[in-house]
Amino acid sequence: MYNVSIIGASGYTGAQLVQLVQQHPELVLKGTYVSSNSADAHKSIGELHGNLAHVDATLLPINDEVLETLANSVDFIFLATPHEASHDWMPILTSGSAKVLDLSGAFRLKDTQVFEDFYGFPHLQKDSLEQAVYGLAEWYCSDIQPAKIIAVPGCYPTASLTALKPLCENQLLDKAVRPVINAVSGVSGAGRKANLTTSFFEVSLHAYGVLGHRHTPEIEAYLGTPVIFTPHLGNFKRGILATITVKVKPGIKQVQLDEVYKAAYADKPIVRLRNSFPKIDDVAHTPFVDLHWKLDEASGYAVITSAIDNVMKGAASQAIQCVNIMTKQPVETGLVL
Amino acid sequence: MYNVSIIGASGYTGAQLVQLVQQHPELVLKGTYVSSNSADAHKSIGELHGNLAHVDATLLPINDEVLETLANSVDFIFLATPHEASHDWMPILTSGSAKVLDLSGAFRLKDTQVFEDFYGFPHLQKDSLEQAVYGLAEWYCSDIQPAKIIAVPGCYPTASLTALKPLCENQLLDKAVRPVINAVSGVSGAGRKANLTTSFFEVSLHAYGVLGHRHTPEIEAYLGTPVIFTPHLGNFKRGILATITVKVKPGIKQVQLDEVYKAAYADKPIVRLRNSFPKIDDVAHTPFVDLHWKLDEASGYAVITSAIDNVMKGAASQAIQCVNIMTKQPVETGLVL
Amino acid sequence: MYNVSIIGASGYTGAQLVQLVQQHPELVLKGTYVSSNSADAHKSIGELHGNLAHVDATLLPINDEVLETLANSVDFIFLATPHEASHDWMPILTSGSAKVLDLSGAFRLKDTQVFEDFYGFPHLQKDSLEQAVYGLAEWYCSDIQPAKIIAVPGCYPTASLTALKPLCENQLLDKAVRPVINAVSGVSGAGRKANLTTSFFEVSLHAYGVLGHRHTPEIEAYLGTPVIFTPHLGNFKRGILATITVKVKPGIKQVQLDEVYKAAYADKPIVRLRNSFPKIDDVAHTPFVDLHWKLDEASGYAVITSAIDNVMKGAASQAIQCVNIMTKQPVETGLVL
Amino acid sequence: MYNVSIIGASGYTGAQLVQLVQQHPELVLKGTYVSSNSADAHKSIGELHGNLAHVDATLLPINDEVLETLANSVDFIFLATPHEASHDWMPILTSGSAKVLDLSGAFRLKDTQVFEDFYGFPHLQKDSLEQAVYGLAEWYCSDIQPAKIIAVPGCYPTASLTALKPLCENQLLDKAVRPVINAVSGVSGAGRKANLTTSFFEVSLHAYGVLGHRHTPEIEAYLGTPVIFTPHLGNFKRGILATITVKVKPGIKQVQLDEVYKAAYADKPIVRLRNSFPKIDDVAHTPFVDLHWKLDEASGYAVITSAIDNVMKGAASQAIQCVNIMTKQPVETGLVL
Repeated sequence: MYNVSIIGASGYTGAQLVQLVQQHPELVLKGTYVSSNSADAHKSIGELHGNLAHVDATLLPINDEVLETLANSVDFIFLATPHEASHDWMPILTSGSAKVLDLSGAFRLKDTQVFEDFYGFPHLQKDSLEQAVYGLAEWYCSDIQPAKIIAVPGCYPTASLTALKPLCENQLLDKAVRPVINAVSGVSGAGRKANLTTSFFEVSLHAYGVLGHRHTPEIEAYLGTPVIFTPHLGNFKRGILATITVKVKPGIKQVQLDEVYKAAYADKPIVRLRNSFPKIDDVAHTPFVDLHWKLDEASGYAVITSAIDNVMKGAASQAIQCVNIMTKQPVETGLVL
Repeated sequence: MYNVSIIGASGYTGAQLVQLVQQHPELVLKGTYVSSNSADAHKSIGELHGNLAHVDATLLPINDEVLETLANSVDFIFLATPHEASHDWMPILTSGSAKVLDLSGAFRLKDTQVFEDFYGFPHLQKDSLEQAVYGLAEWYCSDIQPAKIIAVPGCYPTASLTALKPLCENQLLDKAVRPVINAVSGVSGAGRKANLTTSFFEVSLHAYGVLGHRHTPEIEAYLGTPVIFTPHLGNFKRGILATITVKVKPGIKQVQLDEVYKAAYADKPIVRLRNSFPKIDDVAHTPFVDLHWKLDEASGYAVITSAIDNVMKGAASQAIQCVNIMTKQPVETGLVL
Repeated sequence: MYNVSIIGASGYTGAQLVQLVQQHPELVLKGTYVSSNSADAHKSIGELHGNLAHVDATLLPINDEVLETLANSVDFIFLATPHEASHDWMPILTSGSAKVLDLSGAFRLKDTQVFEDFYGFPHLQKDSLEQAVYGLAEWYCSDIQPAKIIAVPGCYPTASLTALKPLCENQLLDKAVRPVINAVSGVSGAGRKANLTTSFFEVSLHAYGVLGHRHTPEIEAYLGTPVIFTPHLGNFKRGILATITVKVKPGIKQVQLDEVYKAAYADKPIVRLRNSFPKIDDVAHTPFVDLHWKLDEASGYAVITSAIDNVMKGAASQAIQCVNIMTKQPVETGLVL
Repeated sequence: MYNVSIIGASGYTGAQLVQLVQQHPELVLKGTYVSSNSADAHKSIGELHGNLAHVDATLLPINDEVLETLANSVDFIFLATPHEASHDWMPILTSGSAKVLDLSGAFRLKDTQVFEDFYGFPHLQKDSLEQAVYGLAEWYCSDIQPAKIIAVPGCYPTASLTALKPLCENQLLDKAVRPVINAVSGVSGAGRKANLTTSFFEVSLHAYGVLGHRHTPEIEAYLGTPVIFTPHLGNFKRGILATITVKVKPGIKQVQLDEVYKAAYADKPIVRLRNSFPKIDDVAHTPFVDLHWKLDEASGYAVITSAIDNVMKGAASQAIQCVNIMTKQPVETGLVL
């Protein structure tokens, strides 16, 4: 059994982590924390998240002393915190025996100039950044296993990379044409906060962050090729559907695509290769990535769609996958029941 | 042609009024205003409300001087403002030739003690309150016609009173059993503001204001009998469905109910007596009230459902109906096209 | 370990049962069946229900021979079938060692005349009907434990009875005023079938089955008092919110209500007594019933709201609760993880 | 005043046409028709479409005699019918003085081989096809004005062509990279019929018709260049959002794109050039097309989004625009109020 703590448990990702830790056979929840100036401090988690009304967990305020204690008293710390908080707290949290899974964007980009351009503040934790391993569970398993710090991937990159890496790694793409990633995310992706943009009346499908979203460099960094990524806000609570259009090299056949996907995910129970284009609801509330693809052999263009639950595989359940890898359990432990 | 101005045009009701005034053959929009400390001041209305992107109207900041000018320069002023603002501004707005339609709750309750209990501040505008006429268009037409001040009814009271007044006025109810009004409102009812309660992820059908909502005394005042009113927040943008259970006096038959409804609304084009229980979407984006009812003759219990668009008949289009009455046009002018 | 089979696994309740059996530590899924003339026969369950794409289960056609075999080869049979099928197949299914949990309405009403009036066909299985025990898990535990046949309660009755029985059993209600139950159900309640009424464009909140729904006699039978029950179709997929208005006897206080609820559900982990009025999403995808109530001591009227997931506590998870009781496991086994 | 009849008034497009004709100052509704074997024959339109409960119009069965009479007795006939019906009836409907606006796909593709490949039946009405003019109102005004037959464009092509034609006509596109059109449509696009795919529980964002949808050749035919078009079903009732990614020729600047759009739509009141990426709800229930675009000058890739109401600009209101053009009224008559 492993002891874990969750910092940032007032948000949607934090609440999902609480639920996943509760149902995991090998994890024990030792504490849930929020920012020391949060109005949610000292509330029970069920007060904020009605679905957890039966869970006995209080949101305690975090402070330097608590951070230090956690670093030496639990096995794993989940950081479901703003980028700035993760960035600032990482050295102290990694000063003891605990390993840290950071669900913010603070440690995903190795290039600190790109980081500063897209996140708006300079990266000052070079040592931590160097140690951090990108936690895309199906692709970086051997790096994740011994790591001290896991940078849990962003939701859009998870959906996009799972779809594109088999094609890239097998050199099937025509590099003259950039992959076009159109993705629609549920509103939980915007986090738990009062905001006119995500108020119920205002939400209606639209594009945002066009040609400038911070997940673009993350996708490009782990794919190794530039992409055009257009995120959208959808009128649903959970899930991402990414529709990806690529051009493959001349002469590639549908069966070749089928083969590379099957090979890439043969022993990966979290990735489901579907027989038809998946729906958001196929994966909502699940840890799965669902993939389907089709090639127009005449033109060489292919369309792949990738569906995930942004709060699960796009955040919390991928973090649990990483813990499973780090503790040498089957990757789906506590996730596929 | 009549000149009108709208104060509070940044909200959902104000925006709806802009649209209705634009499409009305006898009304001319002279100005749209917002609170002087609003971040929306000087923006175009289309910037806030994308559906009005083609409308050339700027949100001007209101102040005492503007209020005074309006009182003497337009025929009708619509107040889509907070209760406090309507309360405070009414004397100056009614100091000239303009007539005022107030869509807040400030002038609906004649009993100032009840007002203070439910609205949380004392009513200091006794003269205005005395002049104010309740603008339930199908029921107070002769009072509305000559009025200086119209207190446009609340959304829930509009749905409830339209359903219940025919039964009450005809003394069909068994007074020993209170009418039970269960109503579900779309999120627009909460107004245009950033609020965790109405954020997309959080909205999910639930009761609120149980046994204490401020529309209860409004319904009771204009019905003349106590009720149990339970509002709910629903996961849709517009509309109210009120489901009302009453006990009628012994021996009443279904045909008697049919007759009183037909008689009450024979020449009222805005009230549609339906052949089946109406849906929210039957009335969304329309000025109509849809009614249907059924009596269990054995037990004497009857169920009536009443559907309106809360932003239209529950606010803006009812205000337009009042203007039509005041200017002696057919009540549906500019509303039923 | 207990072997179970599910008949009617093509529907939403059947698919939910598959998932619950898969995640239950003591149950083994031995077979999933559909009607022999179903177009879904021989399909995999993941083809119909994308969320189960990873589950290896084929929908086999049922026939008399299979029914007979099941009766002697598994421990529990779940019937997620039409009323007529459950009615017809019950004798053969109970001819062996298997126990049967019927999720249809065929065995809930002991009065066969009322049954025929509301279900439209005569009840011919008197012996089975006599043996059947009503599976409202929190209230009939000692009857359920030794039973051969469980009539799993309807979704609306589950929500309604959980809210009302504590008040009725403690004689707190003023019998001169009928409890008024207004309930809104998600669309899954209508089952998995092509139907214009439940097509996406047509769904919009409205009342149906007014003063004549077949769940009314079920509620009345197990409550022991007549009620006015008005169901509604809501624009969401899962969940029921029942808002119940009652009149209590003179002099009853809020604290007395608090006490009877606490006493009734003290050791019942599936019923969560909430501190505020619950939302549908608090219980969606969970086995819980969430209750909250408020009394207006002056008038004696109280409002209770009860939220469940109609596919879970309103069907599948309640059936699992019954199996847990019958096998003497904690009632929440495999449900609260 | 012009007399019009609507064939196929039981569907969503037909019902929208009824409403638009009712509110149009120069059109008089002379009759609403449905297929002679429709279960909806002889019903009132309000019985099918609750929002039209106040409209006095009966759905009459169509037959050859009626078709012939219509051809000589009204000015305009709207065909909101299946492709096959439009195809078969066109010669008789155009045998008199009436002009016909066909909202099906029967007369949009001039290449009959492509038609047969995508629609599944051979085109036998060569004369009618030759006469038919593509009714994209902002682009083919001078052809539309004198036409006898208008092939009203498909919903996806309307959204796509409005966005792409300014770039194509001005030769700004890099032809080596196909435009990628990702579009999400509301469920009304699937028509009014009972269908498991569009039942409320099943609808959840997903791609369909990938690399083979029949609107692809329609877009390509009127754009003059091949595209990759991927439609999606979204969980909303009305509207299409098309997100279009293109590569422009080297050296093109953002201001050049701004200029071509402004030039193309300078005097076109139905196309709104927005300052930000539009939402579906900005255009739902309106006749507008909303466009916004952004170019990454470094890479040459641009993203344009185009939003329409599929039932309005994607069908019914575009047909009204065509009638306005044919009768030499301002194109927005009866549409922008």
